[in-house]
This record gives sequence, C-alpha cells and structure tokens, in this order.
Amino acid sequence: MGDFFGKLTAQQKHETERQLEVYRNGVQDILPEAELKNKIAKSIFQNQPLKIKLGLDPSAPDVHIGHTVVLNKLKQFQDNGHIIQLIIGDFTGKIGDPTGKSAARNQLTDEEVMRNAKTYFEQFSKVLDMNKVDLHYNSAWLSDLQLEDVIRLSASITVARLMERNDFSERLSTGKPISLHEFFYPLMQGYDSVVLESDIELGGSDQHFNVLMGRHLQEHFQKEKQVVILMPLLEGLDGKEKMSKSKNNYIGVDEDPNNMYGKTMSIPDELIPKYFNLATDLPVKEKQQIAEGLENGTLHPRDAKMLLGKTIVRMYHGTGEADKAELHFKTIFQKGAMPDEIPEAEWKGVGEVLITDLLAGLGLLSSKTEARKMIAGGGIRLNGQKVGDVQMLVKITDGLVLQAGKRKFVKLRLSTAK
Amino acid sequence: MGDFFGKLTAQQKHETERQLEVYRNGVQDILPEAELKNKIAKSIFQNQPLKIKLGLDPSAPDVHIGHTVVLNKLKQFQDNGHIIQLIIGDFTGKIGDPTGKSAARNQLTDEEVMRNAKTYFEQFSKVLDMNKVDLHYNSAWLSDLQLEDVIRLSASITVARLMERNDFSERLSTGKPISLHEFFYPLMQGYDSVVLESDIELGGSDQHFNVLMGRHLQEHFQKEKQVVILMPLLEGLDGKEKMSKSKNNYIGVDEDPNNMYGKTMSIPDELIPKYFNLATDLPVKEKQQIAEGLENGTLHPRDAKMLLGKTIVRMYHGTGEADKAELHFKTIFQKGAMPDEIPEAEWKGVGEVLITDLLAGLGLLSSKTEARKMIAGGGIRLNGQKVGDVQMLVKITDGLVLQAGKRKFVKLRLSTAK
Repeated sequence: MGDFFGKLTAQQKHETERQLEVYRNGVQDILPEAELKNKIAKSIFQNQPLKIKLGLDPSAPDVHIGHTVVLNKLKQFQDNGHIIQLIIGDFTGKIGDPTGKSAARNQLTDEEVMRNAKTYFEQFSKVLDMNKVDLHYNSAWLSDLQLEDVIRLSASITVARLMERNDFSERLSTGKPISLHEFFYPLMQGYDSVVLESDIELGGSDQHFNVLMGRHLQEHFQKEKQVVILMPLLEGLDGKEKMSKSKNNYIGVDEDPNNMYGKTMSIPDELIPKYFNLATDLPVKEKQQIAEGLENGTLHPRDAKMLLGKTIVRMYHGTGEADKAELHFKTIFQKGAMPDEIPEAEWKGVGEVLITDLLAGLGLLSSKTEARKMIAGGGIRLNGQKVGDVQMLVKITDGLVLQAGKRKFVKLRLSTAK
Repeated sequence: MGDFFGKLTAQQKHETERQLEVYRNGVQDILPEAELKNKIAKSIFQNQPLKIKLGLDPSAPDVHIGHTVVLNKLKQFQDNGHIIQLIIGDFTGKIGDPTGKSAARNQLTDEEVMRNAKTYFEQFSKVLDMNKVDLHYNSAWLSDLQLEDVIRLSASITVARLMERNDFSERLSTGKPISLHEFFYPLMQGYDSVVLESDIELGGSDQHFNVLMGRHLQEHFQKEKQVVILMPLLEGLDGKEKMSKSKNNYIGVDEDPNNMYGKTMSIPDELIPKYFNLATDLPVKEKQQIAEGLENGTLHPRDAKMLLGKTIVRMYHGTGEADKAELHFKTIFQKGAMPDEIPEAEWKGVGEVLITDLLAGLGLLSSKTEARKMIAGGGIRLNGQKVGDVQMLVKITDGLVLQAGKRKFVKLRLSTAK
C-alpha cells in the first residue's frame, strides 16, 4: 500500500485526522496506527469504504454490554460510511467439541446456527444499522478446504509462535492438555480475513493473538494486511472478572429497563468511569467531566451511577423507558431509605434458586418459614420488585438486591470460590 | 480382540510359537509382544493372513542394505503367507515443502512418483515376492480429507504428545522453528493404518513415534490396534552413522557384485555380527556361530567379512556372481599381498574428485605428477580395478580402497568433520 495521506487535499487530510481521532478513543491498542491512518486516507482518496471485520461465536448469542464495547467502536466506522463484515463462525460451531470431552460445546445444527445468528442480529440492531452490514458464515469457505490446503496454511506458522498465545503456553507449562485441533482455531479465524480481504479487524484485548493471525495470513497470501484494533475488556458487575454470561456478572442488552438500571447501580464505584467510557455513547468531553467530578469529589458515585444506568437504559430502550427506570429506582430504593452502602453477602453456585432458600441462605431472614410469611405479607422485594410467589425461582446474578421490610437490604455477591 | 491363542489346537499353538520365534529374531522392539502372539493365533484360527504395513517415502528410491533390515523382516511374514501392505507416501511428496525453504523437498509430479515407485519395486523384488504385495498410494484417501476431518483427526492427539517426538522437543528447546504442518506427517502416516486396517506396522527404531501413531489413531477410530515392530538401524560403512544415501556410507542393492563385495570388506570389524544378523538371510544358528567364532578368536575377521560379502552378493546377484566376486577379490587383493590391515586416510567432502587429486590428497603418492605417471604405467588400482584414465572422476565413498604399485594401499575414510 503506497502513501495515500500524502496525495490528499488539505480538507481530505483533515477528514482523515478527524476519523482517526474518533477511532482512537477508548481503544486499548491499534496495530499499527500508522497503517490505520493510511487506510482511512486510501478510502477517502479512492472513495471506497473500508471493510471492518468482527468474528462471532454462534454458540452464545446472548449479547451483553461487554460485547457492546466492540459494537460501539464498529458503529463509529459505520457512521463514517465504512462496511461492517460480521462473520458467523458456524464452521467450528457445527463441529462442536471433537474431543467429546466438553458437554458444553455441542455440535450445532444448521437450524440452531441460524436461530442463534438471528438472535445476534436482533440484539446488534440496537447498536448497528444491520441493513448495511455485510454478513458471512465461514463454513462457506472453510468446509471446502482440503488437507492439502490445511497443510499449506499450517506451513506458514510455527509451533513456537502458537505457543506464544498466553493460554497455550500456560496450559503446556502446567501440564494441561492442548489438543492439536485447537491450534487451528486461530488459523481459521485468520483465514477468514484472507478470504474477505478485511482492512481492519476488531476484537477484545483477549483476542490479541487471534486477530493478529489474520494479519499474518494475509501477508502469507500476499494480500494487503489488516489493521488490528483491540478494545479493553469490560469487567462485570463483580468488578473482578471479564463480563460474561458464564460468570453471570453481566447486563444483557435485552434485559428489561428496571433490571438494567438496577444492575448498573450494583457495579463497584471504581468502575464507573470505565463503564461510561466503554459502554455508553456519551461525547468524549462529557465522559471526561464525569471522571474528573468523581476524582475531585464534586460528583457523588451514586449520582454518577444513576446517570450511567439512565444512559444505558436509554441506549437500548429509548429515553422514555430510561426516565421510567430512573423514577422506579428512586421510588423504590431511595424513598425506601435505601442505605448508601448495601451490605453484601456471598452466594455459591449459579442457576435458579427458590426465593425462600435464597432469603434464608443469605441470612436476610432467619428461616424459610419466616421468608414465606414475609412474602405472603408483601414485605419482600427483589431488585425493587415486590415478590408475590413463595415458589418463585430466582435466577442468580451478581449484584442482585434483596429487601426485607423497609430497612433490611442485602446485595448478593457471587462467590469466586469454585 | 479376544484370546485366540486359547482356542487353538496343540499343533496350531506350536505353529504360532514357531512364527513368533521367527519374527522376534533381530528386532529391537515389539509393541506389545503379547498382542503379536494373539494376532498370529487369530490369523491361524480364522485362516486369514495378517496385514503387515510398511510406509515408503517416494522421494528417495535408492534402496540400500540398511533398508533391507526391514525388508528381510517383511519377507519372513510373507513366507508365512501374510500380506505385505506397501504404502507409497505420495501425498506429502506431491505437496513438497510448503514453507518453500527446503530446495531439497521439491514437489513431485505424478510421473516422478510413479517412476520412483517403479524403481522401488524393482529393488524390493530382490527380497520380496512383489506379485503378492498389496500396494497403495496414500493420496487415494488423504487428498479427500477435508478440514473437518483434519480437525477431528487432530483432536485425538495433544500437543504435549507430539512434543515427545525427539526431534520436535529438541528443536523447540534449541529455538529451531517447527512449522505447524510438520505435526501432520505422523498423523497422516497413522491415518494410513486406520484406512488399511493394518495388523502390524514395521519401521526402523527412528520411526518409533510415527508408527505408534497408527496404533493410537486406530484406537481413536475404534479399530483393532496394530502391533508395532521396530527394527534396529544398521550403521553404514563408516561404522558410525545410520546407513544412508546422503552420508554416502551405503551398499546399494543395485550395485555391481565387485563393489558390493569390496564395500562389505571395508566395514569395521565390530559391525560384522550385526551385518550378519540384520542384512543376511542366513539361519539364526549360523549367525550365532559366526558371532561366537569372532568372539573367541577361532574365526578371523577378514574371513568372516569375506563370508559376509559373498552372502550379500549372493542375495542380490545369485550364487554365480557371489563366487565370481569372491574370486575377484582374492585375485586382486589377496594375491597382490594385500595386508591384513590397510592404513586409512581421512577425506573431507563428497561428490566426485579427479583420480590424481585423490591419490595426492590421500598421501598415497607425493604429487599429482607422480600420480599421472603411475596411472599411465598401469600401477594404480581403485577397489581392485586398474585405472587407465588420468582424467577419471572418482565418486567418493567411505571404505574405497586405492592401491599404488604392489604394496601401497590406502582405505578412504570420510571425515565426520563438517
């Protein structure tokens, strides 16, 4: 790729710099940034959009705001007229776990893949204009590869290089088995970029190795190399682990407004600026002011969180629902003399639990009998909602708030012990 | 596989033991021997031959007596009515070196593969009855494998297991690159056994890892597992390195009788019993007597070597040629007062060298001028043959004997220094 920036008019150069500024915001890394600038310049010079790739695992279609960190970045590219390439990794999904060891990685049927993809798109449509998205299923090219192609592909990469991937080297050194086929997943993901001639690939910072593989393989196949943009990982409600469905520490983009708002209120204070930065569409300046206000004490963390909750609900449910969720929260918690600091209690295990077991188990009430009585009397609230059914099954979530009567509160913390 | 030995008649049991005794002779290892016994018993019980596999690299069709160690063992199976499966590994040969780094590993065309295979068969026919051999080209099944099959195949093996192969672990620890595609070669070789349902696979002891892979993959595909028979490696004429074409320390099965005999005479004395054991078809008892004779001094090493040379020539050229080669040797060397111990001289480099350079370089004569004179006067012999041409190009071989006049001899030793 030649130097395109040098060929631009002053106005075009200004537009290049403007876009670069937008894309740079909030990223963890751009590899390499000089190439990104030149790619933007090229797209302006040739009046051709860039192709921005994101790979998706078809087995886990529940989108949470951890995923939106990347989606929000994609939206910035889409807003400037570039093409978003979404790749459904159906090929590996259909193979499942060929070692047969992981029950969690079942083989997906074509139907399941389509259904999961549809679920993705519905959720993605809250951030991206899905009509403009370029959609692909990678089985379209991967299922045609033959052993000879695989060997040629594999010849471009050394074992030592693969071992640089953190989890591989760690597993090898601790004696945990790595099946040979696992070495293919980064190669397949990279090969997608070769086929689609992607200009840029986005990924969370934990995808560092995999997205760079696309760049490596494009070079091997003598194509223009993609630029890699790594986004920071958003911690979940527990403030410790990466937000994920399996850790049950997430805010789903499909959750109802009150849950979304309530869960946002449960994040640790120190994460507030990061959530604003990565999970909201507020202007950069406003994000900076909030961070400064928290820093110098002119903004109370609870007020900042309420703004955060309202913003997130607004993004996925609109302004009307956001106002309602705020009002609901104020009515239930604040007027109910919710303390600034809710005591926390640890809970082991996930899945669903009987409300009475939960109330007794968390120590909020002394027995299940007492729990049943209070529910019958209308004295129990779960995330601010009155509980009417003594048989209610509660889905365990980190940060879930239980209230008994007017003054007794407890916030559930998932135990990290296994 | 159930217990078949237990179902046999006394006579059949005896036949099983007899075969086992034959196969056991001279091997380095049988993995596991109990299974071999039961497989023999099964073949007798069901009156079905066993399938004995040998894989061949189609890029190096020059067969030397190092290869015959395995061929002689195959012949024992063939003599008992079992089926020899020869697999031409044309699939990898046709891919060549996909990293493009090794000029030595060019891609072979179909024609070249066929020509090389033909050369193999002509040479193998000196040991095996090729009409009874079951011949396969592994591209027949490997070129049909798709990425999905490759992934399933790879899932059966861990990276740690592959790293157990000596050269892999050594290369990784010394920082020498291993291309990922190299991990496939043992898998492909093993998959051949799955497809062909081999009962037994033979290999040199350096093939330990690769032939066990066939057993592993058969188990993975829920087939009866092959038994692995490892043969010792035969050192070359230098007595140090494994016999191989690239080390130029070999006796080719296609060489003319006098060369074959002469080269045999050049092996170090301590290798005589091993050569008898692995490279001749003499009865086990006779081999033992020779070893004992050498041990207790009743057999002179030179006489043992002459018997060895005669036996090897007889195996590949028949009794008539063997007698002639012996006579030739006696006439030239012994009647010419060849000393019992010929002094040795080191020579660096391989390829072809002018006879005059060789004579002067080895110190047999003081100058090239003197060398030219002696050749003109008919006083120079190379491996017993008179040299008539001062421009003669001599192909360097370890153990080559040069004679100047009646009493000056020198035996060439290839320098191991690189």
